[in-house]
Amino acid sequence: MKLALLGCGTVGSEVVRLMRMRGDDLAARVGEPIEIAGIAVRRLDRDRSHLPVDPSLFTTDALGLIKRDDVDLVVEVAGGIEPARTWIATALAEGKSVVTANKALLAEDGPALSAAAKAGGADLYYEAAAAAAIPLMRPLRESLHGDKINRVLGIVNGTTNYICSQMSRTGASFSEALAEATDLGYAEADPTADIDGFDAAAKAALIASLAFHTHVDLGEVYREGIRDLKASDIASAASEGRVVKLLCIATREEDGVSVRVHPAMIPATHPLANVDGAYNAVFVEAESAGRLMFYGAGAGGTETASAVLGDIVAVARNKRGGITAFPPEAAYSDLPVKPIGEARTRYHVSLDVVDEPGVLARVAATFAHHGVSLATVHQSGQGDEAKLVLVTHIAADQQLSDTVEELSQLTSVHQVASVMRVEGE
Amino acid sequence: MKLALLGCGTVGSEVVRLMRMRGDDLAARVGEPIEIAGIAVRRLDRDRSHLPVDPSLFTTDALGLIKRDDVDLVVEVAGGIEPARTWIATALAEGKSVVTANKALLAEDGPALSAAAKAGGADLYYEAAAAAAIPLMRPLRESLHGDKINRVLGIVNGTTNYICSQMSRTGASFSEALAEATDLGYAEADPTADIDGFDAAAKAALIASLAFHTHVDLGEVYREGIRDLKASDIASAASEGRVVKLLCIATREEDGVSVRVHPAMIPATHPLANVDGAYNAVFVEAESAGRLMFYGAGAGGTETASAVLGDIVAVARNKRGGITAFPPEAAYSDLPVKPIGEARTRYHVSLDVVDEPGVLARVAATFAHHGVSLATVHQSGQGDEAKLVLVTHIAADQQLSDTVEELSQLTSVHQVASVMRVEGE
Repeated sequence: MKLALLGCGTVGSEVVRLMRMRGDDLAARVGEPIEIAGIAVRRLDRDRSHLPVDPSLFTTDALGLIKRDDVDLVVEVAGGIEPARTWIATALAEGKSVVTANKALLAEDGPALSAAAKAGGADLYYEAAAAAAIPLMRPLRESLHGDKINRVLGIVNGTTNYICSQMSRTGASFSEALAEATDLGYAEADPTADIDGFDAAAKAALIASLAFHTHVDLGEVYREGIRDLKASDIASAASEGRVVKLLCIATREEDGVSVRVHPAMIPATHPLANVDGAYNAVFVEAESAGRLMFYGAGAGGTETASAVLGDIVAVARNKRGGITAFPPEAAYSDLPVKPIGEARTRYHVSLDVVDEPGVLARVAATFAHHGVSLATVHQSGQGDEAKLVLVTHIAADQQLSDTVEELSQLTSVHQVASVMRVEGE
Repeated sequence: MKLALLGCGTVGSEVVRLMRMRGDDLAARVGEPIEIAGIAVRRLDRDRSHLPVDPSLFTTDALGLIKRDDVDLVVEVAGGIEPARTWIATALAEGKSVVTANKALLAEDGPALSAAAKAGGADLYYEAAAAAAIPLMRPLRESLHGDKINRVLGIVNGTTNYICSQMSRTGASFSEALAEATDLGYAEADPTADIDGFDAAAKAALIASLAFHTHVDLGEVYREGIRDLKASDIASAASEGRVVKLLCIATREEDGVSVRVHPAMIPATHPLANVDGAYNAVFVEAESAGRLMFYGAGAGGTETASAVLGDIVAVARNKRGGITAFPPEAAYSDLPVKPIGEARTRYHVSLDVVDEPGVLARVAATFAHHGVSLATVHQSGQGDEAKLVLVTHIAADQQLSDTVEELSQLTSVHQVASVMRVEGE
């Protein structure tokens, strides 16, 4: 069995190293040795003498390599949209199974690639794309296939989780925690993709697609980042036994699915609450299996390579058996993705209010007017410091945002100090 | 595709119900419908009218059912050693793949059954046996196959975890917490199998076998239960930022594996520390993937049936593809299981000592004499209340127990108040 490796950066180099180091184990698992037929790189003149492979394997002709008769499998770890998309499409059209770690491409073009895999009678595996080494694909697609997943809550971005953890631990502001994350290398020089939730949204699309056996486009994922997170939000959450996390939330509804990424308060006793620092975790609620959680490193070259190797073994074994993982006759749902306004959630609302009798009555009437019932109310402070903190029962997001809109117009309310969704209760 | 269901108790009834309810999904996943060919039960005269199956499917002739030409797969959920062993052996000898949730049988006879599966060219799947619905088999055997697992720490028994959690939360004694667990139905009338660690040891054998691709016999697992756990141990752990859990610990050593079940202190910040109540979790350290954790319900009829259904889909797909999961040519390790004395661990030792100068020196010399170095020492109390609490660095278990033996002979030591291993640091 021979594979073409496309890309030889951080992940690719690790794949080469691990395939060499664990070659015997891989051969035993597959039933025959797996060799590297060639490695496509952008430039041949880089020093790769540290890698345990014959230098003649490197080529700049990726398409030629993919199409070679002796290549059985294709492993894409180059990243980016093009030429990765063309490479993968070419491999699948040739009936060659593909393993990829390319989150961006899958989020943009997943349905087309899945269709291409079916059409070509080939496998498309991407365990490493959703959460690096955390096994998600097999648990979601295989272990739970006899089950029905109702909800997934995930911490799927290490940078934002590090920032939330630090703010919570030290009382730091968002900008202080971000600066620290940058210094430590947890945040990139341009942290937009992480802190504005783009990375988490791409993973949310993949995870929701896996969990619900449907296709969720990146553009259908509602997204809010953590840029506006205030130390006072975190303190307020803590005082009520909650912590703040950037969550990806995917739920199976009666008439579709809801997929969103935003900061949220969860109970401090929730299994996700203790997932700190750069770690990731995905919490799953299934009808029969109940509550499950998968925890691990959500990034890193070696960790990602570990997941890629697991996939290589799987597609190699499928090829030997003459089967594909997701047979063409398998019916996939095509579930509508519901707009954020229809998402069912709870709100934590903090108001700076005028200190006078009747304020709570007017605020409560505003919630009632939009059909939102209140779970808890705390009044505190006096004079200019008077505050109301309210937590609602579950309602549609639209009802909640309409309520907040109207609250901000009340003369009794100086300011809507913060609004955050409450999940996992 | 037709299956024979052996047993129709709590889990079997759920399998029947879920196969009916989710039949279309299962058919889509496998590529063809899966039907129940027959259900072997001990007695035909029980009322099973609530189950959505044709009553003529029930039979007391399990062997006849297994051997029927139209039966492709066999699902054993009857439990116990015999006749389950004969049934499974018969099915495998006929080349029919088997899904089982039978932890006791696998722990007693796993190697022979695996060999029978290989000889018969059939699959033997048992996701539900190790930790009910928590997906372990696929992550350990498939996702991580390109990796090397170094260590597994697991909370794999809900009853003991509930008791440990309650003792920790309320300061209750072991007998009070056990009484409460019994009242709530978390502990059986005869709780021996749980609290003395037999159930956890059987799971430890399965998990270690999966993680290290070897065979670990139940008899090779070192086992201590929680019967002697004292409220003071838990308080002492808490004062140092640790919690006490009954752990199953499997480690890959240079020259073999070590598998043990005993109460241990772990840091309160360890991901396992917050696994409370009846929940289970398995924490894995792999060379490339790093730290992973799998969390969920470790028991329950529906949860177990969910795992069984996942396995049914897997073996049915393998059969359609004409492959087995663990091909006969796959090399399995046959690693020696090391005795407890050679396990590498740390100890937390609490001593009631004579309040006089030089006691610490004598105690420290005793540790040094056995080559055990100390990480931390706390002295507290005066007169009859004088105490020394010591935590060691890593050493062989035998060195540590020899040290404790000698400490108990010192005239400066009134009593070795407690000794507990420290893990996960």
